[in-house]
Amino acid sequence: MHDIIIIGAGPAGLTASLYALRSGKSVLIFEKESIGGQISTSPKVENYPSLKEISGMELATNMFEQVMDLGVEFEYDEITNIKKFDDHFEVSTSTDTFSSLAVIIATGVKHKKLNLPNEDDLIGSGISYCATCDGPFFKDEDVAVIGDGNSAFQYAALLANYCKKVTICTLFDWFVADKALVEKVKSLNNVSIITDVSTTEYLTSNDELCGLKLKNLKTNEFIRLDVKGCFVAIGQIPDNKIFSEYVDLNEQGFIIADESCKTKTDGLFVCGDCRTKEVRQVTTATSDGAIAAIQAVKFIDR
Amino acid sequence: MHDIIIIGAGPAGLTASLYALRSGKSVLIFEKESIGGQISTSPKVENYPSLKEISGMELATNMFEQVMDLGVEFEYDEITNIKKFDDHFEVSTSTDTFSSLAVIIATGVKHKKLNLPNEDDLIGSGISYCATCDGPFFKDEDVAVIGDGNSAFQYAALLANYCKKVTICTLFDWFVADKALVEKVKSLNNVSIITDVSTTEYLTSNDELCGLKLKNLKTNEFIRLDVKGCFVAIGQIPDNKIFSEYVDLNEQGFIIADESCKTKTDGLFVCGDCRTKEVRQVTTATSDGAIAAIQAVKFIDR
Repeated sequence: MHDIIIIGAGPAGLTASLYALRSGKSVLIFEKESIGGQISTSPKVENYPSLKEISGMELATNMFEQVMDLGVEFEYDEITNIKKFDDHFEVSTSTDTFSSLAVIIATGVKHKKLNLPNEDDLIGSGISYCATCDGPFFKDEDVAVIGDGNSAFQYAALLANYCKKVTICTLFDWFVADKALVEKVKSLNNVSIITDVSTTEYLTSNDELCGLKLKNLKTNEFIRLDVKGCFVAIGQIPDNKIFSEYVDLNEQGFIIADESCKTKTDGLFVCGDCRTKEVRQVTTATSDGAIAAIQAVKFIDR
Repeated sequence: MHDIIIIGAGPAGLTASLYALRSGKSVLIFEKESIGGQISTSPKVENYPSLKEISGMELATNMFEQVMDLGVEFEYDEITNIKKFDDHFEVSTSTDTFSSLAVIIATGVKHKKLNLPNEDDLIGSGISYCATCDGPFFKDEDVAVIGDGNSAFQYAALLANYCKKVTICTLFDWFVADKALVEKVKSLNNVSIITDVSTTEYLTSNDELCGLKLKNLKTNEFIRLDVKGCFVAIGQIPDNKIFSEYVDLNEQGFIIADESCKTKTDGLFVCGDCRTKEVRQVTTATSDGAIAAIQAVKFIDR
């Protein structure tokens, strides 16, 4: 029996471990993919306060080593089920079951990709899923944004502040984004929109993105768009179905919770990108991790 | 005219600067005391994710240099007034007035001190105002907590997890803290309470705290309490009065706002310890700073 089981070893889960361990609690943390979650794929992080520049992998490794030093127990496995009993929880992998007094969900979120052949190779070399994080690396350059939702149009508005030219590429000639936001973005003189196109190829030069090959879905003609950066904003995928008995999920699958990080189930907390929130950044994830751990410690001590 | 004026250069204000500058906005930040705010007085920080150990001053300096590199403008002065006009704000010091499109309040909070002669010298050498932050430095030691509110009793409950003995010292024989919390803490076998005492002296040995001299206010007798650590939990003082026309303040003087960091005034945002929140840590401050800046940038771009 552990005091706290944490599901997910991204910045949220690792910070929750840090706070729980420093409060004298035993912690078992599970990760099914990579330590650091999404941030581990980010080649350059310049918006983590106090660190001018660090790779996401190094940032994640530092966070992980910090909690390893404090005695965290780590399992590289996927949680497939959770059950609440009167005085404890049981979480299961495909082969084993573990018990704890409290559970913190920190499963994060994944950005949807276009899944073009060289997409993963180009992350950090032109392709990004977060304009707030990576936009400033493309100052005075031409960039594209792919998507038609609020995120895509917000990315375009943000990038227009410092990029030379921003082109939004959408699948249809109507947009999911709010009309007011669309109108505002349309009014910016360095933003244009190409509608009815599908991105069929990431074009490269010296292993860096240099453009997009777009197919007009109405005329079947191909267009070449020269850009140094491409922000893919076609959605995020949370992965919280196995918790649905004990938490409320919104339409997109995020766990409904405010900054208290409490779920509807006593002793079950949620932190980081997998909960409902407006801003998903490393800073907001670590904040949640601290809060969820403090709440879990209070719950156990009660 | 600046895009954004930020009032306060603690972790919240500095992170807000970081995000605003990276979004291409011009930023003027004011600080009336010390860069880093409260954290700058903390000799050892071990709960900032990714940094195993750093002094608060170094952490603050790193955050400050990061935004100086990005071109933040800095004024070492106190803001004495703020006025909102149709399309901008004016903030004033005693000698000058500055304009901006948006304002972010990050004035932080101060911990009340006992104001004993050697108190400041002993911060980091036995005296602390935050058990969550500094408690683990006193593992297996005897410690005292001064105060009778929820914070004091929560500190005691937390410290009881890893300290040898925790003694709560209260001025009266009744407590401000919630009864359930008091009962719970009383039930812990390594916690005791000394009521009706005032702390009259911090006792030292080799410049480290070694005990407290307590005066029983009913008998006027003096008691010596041997402790290595003393957590002063007698309240926090926010400093938000000059904003009261444009924000809602709660009874204690904190600006009422949720994690959106929005106030009741368009274009005026609040982040960090000075807003209503349950957990005040560096992580929660930097999270707020990121959110407030993103909101301010959106406000300006609209």
